Amino acid sequence: MIVDEGLELLTEDESRELLASGEVGRIGITIGALPAIFPVNYRMVDGAIFFRTSEGSKMTAATNGSVVAFEVDDYQVAERSGWSVLAIGTAHLVDAAAPKLDVLNTSLAPLADGRRPALVCIEPTFISGRRIVHEPHAINRTL
Amino acid sequence: MIVDEGLELLTEDESRELLASGEVGRIGITIGALPAIFPVNYRMVDGAIFFRTSEGSKMTAATNGSVVAFEVDDYQVAERSGWSVLAIGTAHLVDAAAPKLDVLNTSLAPLADGRRPALVCIEPTFISGRRIVHEPHAINRTL
Repeated sequence: MIVDEGLELLTEDESRELLASGEVGRIGITIGALPAIFPVNYRMVDGAIFFRTSEGSKMTAATNGSVVAFEVDDYQVAERSGWSVLAIGTAHLVDAAAPKLDVLNTSLAPLADGRRPALVCIEPTFISGRRIVHEPHAINRTL
Repeated sequence: MIVDEGLELLTEDESRELLASGEVGRIGITIGALPAIFPVNYRMVDGAIFFRTSEGSKMTAATNGSVVAFEVDDYQVAERSGWSVLAIGTAHLVDAAAPKLDVLNTSLAPLADGRRPALVCIEPTFISGRRIVHEPHAINRTL
């Protein structure tokens, strides 16, 4: 277990597992040369991240062919515990006839009302994760 | 109340209030031409966002003089409710002798162990926020 400044660096497998367990993540994109981060509800299917957005929106334009960041985390401030996973990859709009769509139609309903017919897919080429560990806990885990 | 595709657009005052109420946010930066998002625990003091990081880290380099994105949110997936706030501004390292430091010394302890002596400040020049609203709720609120 590698610990750097109180953070355990997770393996890629652990990071993918946490990424697959999440429901709300944040996408980092560039809009008009400015950085922006927006939450989206998503699903992982076959190692790729999928979420819905409005057709013709800034988000749709910014996620079609761009390299984007995608982050998921879960923190309990009172317990000073938590983890985060960062994925980086190229985003693209998915053809509505793609075979993976059947799974997504049943499991990826946006939290918000309104029309979000565009489906974005991020294929991660880099995944990293870290988890907060406190000294006594770290010692127990290595015994 | 402006509602766009199920999202109520918050006023800047409402957004600042939510930003000030949060404890963990995510910063969007560029490292080696790649976008990245990392969670940090932060405080707002006099309208600016402060968080600690390691001296000499990639984070320190990426947040000294760059325009960055900062996002805070809170979602309850089971209730399909939640909100998010996005702030954009220039980040800079803060001189340890700055007068604001007294407040931060007592209220900004990082969740993780380890040394994080560098203090980063983001002065937001753009703040926006949105909250999920569902139709019956939206109607009630406008009556």
